[in-house]
Amino acid sequence: MKKTVLDINCDLGESFGAYQLGRDEEILGLITSANVACGFHAGDPHIMRKTVALAKKNGVRVGAHPGLPDLIGFGRRAMDISPTELKDMLTYQMSALRGFVEATGMKLQHVIQHGALTRMAEENEAIGKAIVDSILEVDPTLFYLTLEGSYLPEMAKKMGLRTVRVAFADRAYDQKKRLVSRNVPGSVIHDLDRVEERIEQLVTTGEIRTIEGENIPIEFDSMMLHGDHPEALRIAKTVSNTLKRLGVMVKPMSEFF
Amino acid sequence: MKKTVLDINCDLGESFGAYQLGRDEEILGLITSANVACGFHAGDPHIMRKTVALAKKNGVRVGAHPGLPDLIGFGRRAMDISPTELKDMLTYQMSALRGFVEATGMKLQHVIQHGALTRMAEENEAIGKAIVDSILEVDPTLFYLTLEGSYLPEMAKKMGLRTVRVAFADRAYDQKKRLVSRNVPGSVIHDLDRVEERIEQLVTTGEIRTIEGENIPIEFDSMMLHGDHPEALRIAKTVSNTLKRLGVMVKPMSEFF
Amino acid sequence: MKKTVLDINCDLGESFGAYQLGRDEEILGLITSANVACGFHAGDPHIMRKTVALAKKNGVRVGAHPGLPDLIGFGRRAMDISPTELKDMLTYQMSALRGFVEATGMKLQHVIQHGALTRMAEENEAIGKAIVDSILEVDPTLFYLTLEGSYLPEMAKKMGLRTVRVAFADRAYDQKKRLVSRNVPGSVIHDLDRVEERIEQLVTTGEIRTIEGENIPIEFDSMMLHGDHPEALRIAKTVSNTLKRLGVMVKPMSEFF
Amino acid sequence: MKKTVLDINCDLGESFGAYQLGRDEEILGLITSANVACGFHAGDPHIMRKTVALAKKNGVRVGAHPGLPDLIGFGRRAMDISPTELKDMLTYQMSALRGFVEATGMKLQHVIQHGALTRMAEENEAIGKAIVDSILEVDPTLFYLTLEGSYLPEMAKKMGLRTVRVAFADRAYDQKKRLVSRNVPGSVIHDLDRVEERIEQLVTTGEIRTIEGENIPIEFDSMMLHGDHPEALRIAKTVSNTLKRLGVMVKPMSEFF
Repeated sequence: MKKTVLDINCDLGESFGAYQLGRDEEILGLITSANVACGFHAGDPHIMRKTVALAKKNGVRVGAHPGLPDLIGFGRRAMDISPTELKDMLTYQMSALRGFVEATGMKLQHVIQHGALTRMAEENEAIGKAIVDSILEVDPTLFYLTLEGSYLPEMAKKMGLRTVRVAFADRAYDQKKRLVSRNVPGSVIHDLDRVEERIEQLVTTGEIRTIEGENIPIEFDSMMLHGDHPEALRIAKTVSNTLKRLGVMVKPMSEFF
Repeated sequence: MKKTVLDINCDLGESFGAYQLGRDEEILGLITSANVACGFHAGDPHIMRKTVALAKKNGVRVGAHPGLPDLIGFGRRAMDISPTELKDMLTYQMSALRGFVEATGMKLQHVIQHGALTRMAEENEAIGKAIVDSILEVDPTLFYLTLEGSYLPEMAKKMGLRTVRVAFADRAYDQKKRLVSRNVPGSVIHDLDRVEERIEQLVTTGEIRTIEGENIPIEFDSMMLHGDHPEALRIAKTVSNTLKRLGVMVKPMSEFF
Repeated sequence: MKKTVLDINCDLGESFGAYQLGRDEEILGLITSANVACGFHAGDPHIMRKTVALAKKNGVRVGAHPGLPDLIGFGRRAMDISPTELKDMLTYQMSALRGFVEATGMKLQHVIQHGALTRMAEENEAIGKAIVDSILEVDPTLFYLTLEGSYLPEMAKKMGLRTVRVAFADRAYDQKKRLVSRNVPGSVIHDLDRVEERIEQLVTTGEIRTIEGENIPIEFDSMMLHGDHPEALRIAKTVSNTLKRLGVMVKPMSEFF
Repeated sequence: MKKTVLDINCDLGESFGAYQLGRDEEILGLITSANVACGFHAGDPHIMRKTVALAKKNGVRVGAHPGLPDLIGFGRRAMDISPTELKDMLTYQMSALRGFVEATGMKLQHVIQHGALTRMAEENEAIGKAIVDSILEVDPTLFYLTLEGSYLPEMAKKMGLRTVRVAFADRAYDQKKRLVSRNVPGSVIHDLDRVEERIEQLVTTGEIRTIEGENIPIEFDSMMLHGDHPEALRIAKTVSNTLKRLGVMVKPMSEFF
């Protein structure tokens, strides 16, 4: 079944004080949903307000992208925190961002955890449950972005959240529908023609060719872009143009899901 | 005109990680409104949730007590930040706390800035305006706690906030209705009999004897306690008992103001 | 072989800004070596200078007690950092403390890693090696405090460090000479008579009775006290008095080892 | 009297974690002394080690560039800290950096305070004295970099420090030998021909034309470059090439001063 409408999301607002990261202004013209850092692993109150305002100006909806309290490690280093500690940290961050979103008259749309939190959740169900609990207490109508290949979307759905699955056009998948680790050769796809092919396969067949060479079905309603590496913008443009060529409408997830 | 009803407020939730500060559990039995630190000058997500839950259990309403981003200086050192930077920091902190308050089914009741922010606001109207702007954007129905002797309550009222004035039973005032600096001998009143006398004067006459010896009228609807020094609890009990003896009802400000 | 001379060490300088932790002034009269926090998991520049000065006044030698960059978790939560990152963090912290020590005319005496770092090192030899590498580059004449029951003292010695083993009078050991986890009942010994017995056994026989009931030999040249819990002082006095009664001289490790 | 030898210094090591700032590798080929951030306003342990190693590889000597504890504000916001607090913070930072420098076999060469500290020192002699006190206790043979137009170099010299004055080729001076505030039009010189002219005037006459149009004598032994803005590298190359053309030898200050 061909996809006729998709969301495109990307991590944004990852600058901090005098430190610039990412090309938010350009990316915002290509996406429909922004995952905004909340001040723990990246972002600060001023960056948050500015990013939310820019998103609004571009018709892009805002979601929270909370992370571990580790600015120096950019939230990418696993920490041995308890589910309770994590739930408190997430509620803090999502609520803080929500303040800026609501001050503009918008509503917070979605949540996606950052960095090492994803691996921590996949390896420890109590961590995954803390994430879902926190979203439920902040606002049970928030969309929760997840990947295939983990227990998380199923559990989140059972606990009452609306989950939206994301797909990557520039990352390799394995047979278990998991992203192949960045350390493995071929895990990140730099060739724009291959990115285009993969999007076409995803959109027209609902399948993706794994790194092992098989075609497997992938559930998804949002394409995820990367915003923080040098070629991010090229990939982003390829995704946007390919979807346009294929006649797929792009809209914020809350407008069609 | 004798006061028949008053609020009692106190700064709480000032612990951080393994560091304990204040005697929150005991103080909560004596007050009606808690000013809860929001993680910049003191407090952390876990302490915030715990303090909010304890307040609820004690029938105490919760307000935000945001401060400067200076944990090591406990928010007591003035910083040369712009009004814009301040507004963003305050919206962040108030919104984060609001998340914990609303997760319990309560509503955030009030706001009072912490530490050096008060002096910074009194010396720079743009800073004062940033505080009021931030409260207005987070929730224009929040009460704003202020002291007499400054332009702040007047400006806040004109800008659309409901202001509640606080009075101190254990701090000396000068003729301009300002608190006398802690560096001046006699500025902090340790004698419980004198504290009791002052409360009686405030409640029955609406006046306070200044450090210069004059009686001046003081507008107030909430008594402010200190929670973080050793004798805080003795003073708190004196305030509570004296109000009881004088037949003053104590209630959260939102229930009578 | 009876011990005739021992060092007594304790973690100190764990306050932070307005937050007080521990009873450093009282503990300093009972010990010979202080493990001073270096500002990452606890301590700050002002506390560090003050603690070093107090140690000097009490004839106590100073060592570095570096930790993970996690103030809110007090350095007790394992973090997935690389050996390289750790080495850099440790050199930073030890060097910072050394500045305060040398400013008083003393020399830094020893090093002992804090909190989760011990477990991380025991589970990952590359982490252990990073600790030793860092000490070697800061000053190869520093003593490195370790526990029995791990590869660490052996590796450190091979790499060129002088290691001093520490023993606990108030913690249970297992047959592998490891401390029994605090979660296990009986792991922490609160009874002062039993603490006294254990010290007497350690000093006169060089053995300790394990939690399983066997007597095993323990190598040690320093008794470790805890400074941050309520009964710390009582235990500290018991250790000090027992050693006195047994005729053991207490001296900083650098004076006899 | 024509200058025959000069030092060229620049602020480096201002990245933090995943955040890149400045073009350190290119700048290092053009300078003789690096002012390395120490982890409070910028820099982190890993960046510090890396920057020191790069400096050594380029034959560049390392100095400490300590700042206020305000990463989000990049140390550019004045803070109301006491001289005692400042002295402790500076000793901490300089000592930490010294650890990395000495681990490579080099010696720390000099110190220059960062950002708002300069203004704070110029406005408050107790702050200036705290800076000098801190340098003296860390190592009284360190060179202290200062600007003309302030009491600081004179006081530092009286207190026992060797001071080296720095000059800027791309910043306007006023008649009191002070840098003109960046807010004033014409305060920053972008035109490379004018930068070249100013260097030539400085080197051949020891004078500089002020913003008011007068020529005044400026004492200096090091040219200061900026490393963190986009055109920094162009200016740096102009300074380097002009000094070469004028036959001025460039060497680390410790080799000729």
